[in-house]
Amino acid sequence: MFRITPPDIHAMREAKRLLDGFIKPPGSLGTLEEIAIRLAGITGHARNTLKRKVITLFGSDHGVYSEGVCSSPQDFTAGLMRVYAESQDGGINILARQAGAELRLYDLGIKNFTPHQNVISHRFMDGGTHNFLHGRAMPHELAQRVIDYGVDLVRDMKSEGVDLIGTGEVGMANTTPACACIMACLGVRDDSLVGRGAGLTDEAFARKKSVILEGLGLHSESLTDPVNILSCVGGLDIAAIAGVFIGGAVYRVPVVVDGVISIAGALTAYQLEPLTREYMFASHESPEPAYTRAAEFMKLKPSLRLGMRLGEGTGCAVFMRIIDDALAIINGMGDFTSLTKGD
Amino acid sequence: MFRITPPDIHAMREAKRLLDGFIKPPGSLGTLEEIAIRLAGITGHARNTLKRKVITLFGSDHGVYSEGVCSSPQDFTAGLMRVYAESQDGGINILARQAGAELRLYDLGIKNFTPHQNVISHRFMDGGTHNFLHGRAMPHELAQRVIDYGVDLVRDMKSEGVDLIGTGEVGMANTTPACACIMACLGVRDDSLVGRGAGLTDEAFARKKSVILEGLGLHSESLTDPVNILSCVGGLDIAAIAGVFIGGAVYRVPVVVDGVISIAGALTAYQLEPLTREYMFASHESPEPAYTRAAEFMKLKPSLRLGMRLGEGTGCAVFMRIIDDALAIINGMGDFTSLTKGD
Repeated sequence: MFRITPPDIHAMREAKRLLDGFIKPPGSLGTLEEIAIRLAGITGHARNTLKRKVITLFGSDHGVYSEGVCSSPQDFTAGLMRVYAESQDGGINILARQAGAELRLYDLGIKNFTPHQNVISHRFMDGGTHNFLHGRAMPHELAQRVIDYGVDLVRDMKSEGVDLIGTGEVGMANTTPACACIMACLGVRDDSLVGRGAGLTDEAFARKKSVILEGLGLHSESLTDPVNILSCVGGLDIAAIAGVFIGGAVYRVPVVVDGVISIAGALTAYQLEPLTREYMFASHESPEPAYTRAAEFMKLKPSLRLGMRLGEGTGCAVFMRIIDDALAIINGMGDFTSLTKGD
Repeated sequence: MFRITPPDIHAMREAKRLLDGFIKPPGSLGTLEEIAIRLAGITGHARNTLKRKVITLFGSDHGVYSEGVCSSPQDFTAGLMRVYAESQDGGINILARQAGAELRLYDLGIKNFTPHQNVISHRFMDGGTHNFLHGRAMPHELAQRVIDYGVDLVRDMKSEGVDLIGTGEVGMANTTPACACIMACLGVRDDSLVGRGAGLTDEAFARKKSVILEGLGLHSESLTDPVNILSCVGGLDIAAIAGVFIGGAVYRVPVVVDGVISIAGALTAYQLEPLTREYMFASHESPEPAYTRAAEFMKLKPSLRLGMRLGEGTGCAVFMRIIDDALAIINGMGDFTSLTKGD
């Protein structure tokens, strides 16, 4: 469907050769070296510098909210998006600035959100998705359309010179569709993968588990491929993020995975196009069990263990500075000639 | 022996109160919140900014090198120290710059090191420690003197306005005394804690295990307290680092743990003065099993899983930016009034 080519093995070999020549035991900088090598494969150049980082933050609401699977008021989605856009003192505003990344805000279907100049409006469904216990969350053709939208965003960012993308989201209850998508993608049908999201009472947690199992049961005949899964139990945020991961692979831009919603998008992309995995970077280890299972399935190893469960792309932002460190190493470290120069 | 007071519980409570009021589920920024709270306890102020970060890098040689427990030539200690001082393109030079930290270099006893203007010379033993298979690595009174030196370094840094310290080292074979110290401190006498250091052949790895066990057996009568342990099987680097951790607690400056050598110093400090633990921050998870055991013993949780095994303080440098992120959050994030302002 999409034209994706594998990473450039020659550039990767050249990056490894450089790293092995530096004044350190080979491989002793661990993941910093792996990151530098993988980036070489993506860009085709052994050495790289990042000029423009963007964190995309997709806001959308979820019909399944009405099942009582989330402890926060639903209008927090709109309220938080307004904070990111206006007072700009949300968690991701702060951490994106720390990372030197631009934050781009998208309204894909936030309930009662008044348009704001700092928010790109592309409302695929006016008040968010439908409740997946009463039918498909979104029509099949719409799921595909939102994916394509995500792919096109990367095409446009690439032409602007964006060379690193993080994938954030906001939307009350969105760990529920994320978890349902991951379970559907992996063929898991027990509730051991369901987590508490950003914070749930015991009662709401029990309800979340049964809602997810009920949804997966209800749609079981249709959960045949990733786009159908998105359509049945997914979300607009997850679909757009899946598109961004596909776009990253098509346009050769590295894309960073955040938490459980982001990895649901990544897993969708991976099952549509396995090569997308080569363009993904895991950031932090979400405490959600579905995250862990999806990461293991794709053999992605998150480098940060910070117990973060805020979403918004906050894990991506923290991780971007580790990518900076990896590139500083390959661009700046001396080789063994430095060692003997002084003698 | 040293005057150490516990963290300021009032400042910690105030920091937590601030964080809980921010626009996020309480605790959802995980370790970033914990770091901000712990720093409040150390400084006595709920909000903090870091003005001056230093990474101390202690160079020293180790008599046990001659037992064949290290795959690199011993003169790499001097050579690497010269790189850090002169061409400044070693791993830690790069990563300290990335972290906005000043790198301070100390020669505590490097074999054949020619004095260099960028290296502070305090050579406690001219060619490094003695081989611990032939007697004590250093005299008992010297071990105490090196600890005191580390404590005094923090006193001086504190008066310069240094508010965050990382603990690096360089010294061929120094994972051997580090591992021996940790095993002695924890009372472990099997070789499951011995790791491959920066890189060892199978043969050298087997030798390293037997050398450590033999050393611990030889000195078993004397391994009665942390200073005696340092004296018998330790190193000048480990002793100075132990002093820095004690100094951090005495002068209330947070100190970051690096890898296995650094945590050997941290564990020594902890066993001398348990309150030092409250002033320590773990950075990255070293692949050395002795590191893991020591961290668990002190209930320190490293946030970075990067598979790094270079030492030099490189893990501290990467982690310092996470501390920056934690402080940016507590200093900049909005509270729930932001959420309703727009409505």
